[in-house]
Amino acid sequence: MTNNGMTITAVVMAGGRGERFWPQSRMHCPKQFLSLTGDGETMLQKTVRRLDGLVQPEHIYIVTNAEYLGLVQEQLPAVPAENLLCEPAPRNTAPAIALAAAVIRKRLGDAVMLVLPSDHLVRHEALCADFLSRAASAAELGENLLTVGITPQYPETGYGYIEFTRAEGMPVGVYSVSSFREKPDAETAQQYVASGRYLWNSGMFAWKASTYFAALKTHLPAVHAIAEHLSDACDTPEFDTVLKAEFPQMPSVSVDYGVLEHADRLYTIPGSFGWDDVGSWPSLRRVAKTDTNGNYRSGDTVTFGTRDCVLVGGKKLMAAVGLEHIIAVDTDDALLICDADSAQDVKKITEMLREQGRGELL
Amino acid sequence: MTNNGMTITAVVMAGGRGERFWPQSRMHCPKQFLSLTGDGETMLQKTVRRLDGLVQPEHIYIVTNAEYLGLVQEQLPAVPAENLLCEPAPRNTAPAIALAAAVIRKRLGDAVMLVLPSDHLVRHEALCADFLSRAASAAELGENLLTVGITPQYPETGYGYIEFTRAEGMPVGVYSVSSFREKPDAETAQQYVASGRYLWNSGMFAWKASTYFAALKTHLPAVHAIAEHLSDACDTPEFDTVLKAEFPQMPSVSVDYGVLEHADRLYTIPGSFGWDDVGSWPSLRRVAKTDTNGNYRSGDTVTFGTRDCVLVGGKKLMAAVGLEHIIAVDTDDALLICDADSAQDVKKITEMLREQGRGELL
Repeated sequence: MTNNGMTITAVVMAGGRGERFWPQSRMHCPKQFLSLTGDGETMLQKTVRRLDGLVQPEHIYIVTNAEYLGLVQEQLPAVPAENLLCEPAPRNTAPAIALAAAVIRKRLGDAVMLVLPSDHLVRHEALCADFLSRAASAAELGENLLTVGITPQYPETGYGYIEFTRAEGMPVGVYSVSSFREKPDAETAQQYVASGRYLWNSGMFAWKASTYFAALKTHLPAVHAIAEHLSDACDTPEFDTVLKAEFPQMPSVSVDYGVLEHADRLYTIPGSFGWDDVGSWPSLRRVAKTDTNGNYRSGDTVTFGTRDCVLVGGKKLMAAVGLEHIIAVDTDDALLICDADSAQDVKKITEMLREQGRGELL
Repeated sequence: MTNNGMTITAVVMAGGRGERFWPQSRMHCPKQFLSLTGDGETMLQKTVRRLDGLVQPEHIYIVTNAEYLGLVQEQLPAVPAENLLCEPAPRNTAPAIALAAAVIRKRLGDAVMLVLPSDHLVRHEALCADFLSRAASAAELGENLLTVGITPQYPETGYGYIEFTRAEGMPVGVYSVSSFREKPDAETAQQYVASGRYLWNSGMFAWKASTYFAALKTHLPAVHAIAEHLSDACDTPEFDTVLKAEFPQMPSVSVDYGVLEHADRLYTIPGSFGWDDVGSWPSLRRVAKTDTNGNYRSGDTVTFGTRDCVLVGGKKLMAAVGLEHIIAVDTDDALLICDADSAQDVKKITEMLREQGRGELL
């Protein structure tokens, strides 16, 4: 509940099939279902635990797909079965959020939706919950679209950026978004960070279900029309049929590109709570404990003259000698060795394996 | 037989415990017993096959130790059991060769000994046999100590060098050795190669058993005295007792340092037959087939943006991305990932494992 009494719901996006953590992540078990930091708690579980005290379990919705439904049920037994929403086909974030908004509007009339990725990490969890609470309150004030911006710590080129300015008529700490910027090159990222006018785009959002419907109507009418059908059918015997028939007809479009970049009442709350999207193997060095030489190590590893590496051992000893900036990940049926600067090219390997008909390794 | 009728024997040194090919080489199965080039023939087997037509199997002697005796018997069934000589303790090359010389002198009176490492590779095997034949002939001419020098192809810093000069009164192509040089630094190696006066020290030698005994008497009298006892006891019931009691009393010293550096009638025959000591993982790129990006690959490997690497896959897929100059070797119980320039530091890992009491991995 916000201070004013509107229900706060959370919509956790857990349908992603990310391959950037291959070979540990697989088609049948992507990143959000793994405990990459080795503490036994998966990223999805961390995401939901972070909502303790802010969102009731019965108001937590998970958007996923049929293939991952079993993993979600297993990892999140407290979330009601009727809140697990399966996309019949991948259509990116705008339709996925529309599906959740349709269900929430039908069940609750209206409610604040906190939209959250399921595969990011947060170091200061209490601070994060406070920011989400403030975002929820600001979202409830009107037809506002809130995005949680992160005060940048360094000129990361792997994130999108948000340009922000002072906002009139909003609570202290809430700013207007004046533009979205795609992942910048190194020089541009330096300028963004130096200017003090840019935040990282965290992919965490807050708005009322009704606000999202209104924004869809203006900016993505094709999505809006189907969302109305889904809301009408929700909790009726026809829902599955309507979902399977109409959801795949939605255009595949991200909420950033399809809605937020065109919206008027777009705001951001700049936060800093040790957020990291853990976008690829090298980022484990930022978010998890490293040894005195800056190596992230898990499993049975031994090193000599090795610095700034990510070493994920499997069932055997991994010995690293004279390495710098190398990623090595050993699993039962595949071993990846990769220069940290080439981590984005891991997908070239998975593409090759797909072409070679070696789907069992994906 | 040489042209003059003296028997030619071969003494193959197969007792080394080299760890530079860890984790594929192990205490219980070092490099000479492996087929590093992946053709199924071990380096020891190649060494002996190279003697076809030059040395009769009954005149081939293998110096090894009790631990490797089974491997030698299995890999060289044609070599008579009484020619497999086991050092009771490792004492480096001068005593090992003395043991063989003692047995050969007792059995044959005198004979030429071709002394050969068991873990080097030769590309042009017929040329190599011709050089060994010429070395044997020059050895038979008198109290000559012959070493096969290799015309250097590039300024290798991992080899010892031999300085040579014209020799008086010797056949064409036989030169005097004026000095031995330890492994040089890069600049010195450049100078050696540019000067045209230096050869690589191959560790292949030729001399008569009687010549070696005489050289020991002058330069290593403690080794000589025990070698005389061994020769006396050879093929008597006392041999094993004498060997076990006296061999370990010999000083541990290399033939280069203990004998050759002080000897007078020291000659070299410069050869060039694609010789390589295959001293460490990176050298596999020199001696075995590489892909178009200069990678040596064995096993199930897939690469992207990867150059000049040595990739030895195990029982699972090995994927390499963006790597340059990296060694990766996957075995059942250990995985090595190493910068090629740090290959000599692999022994730091094996030292650590020894200290940690993890001998099963050595």
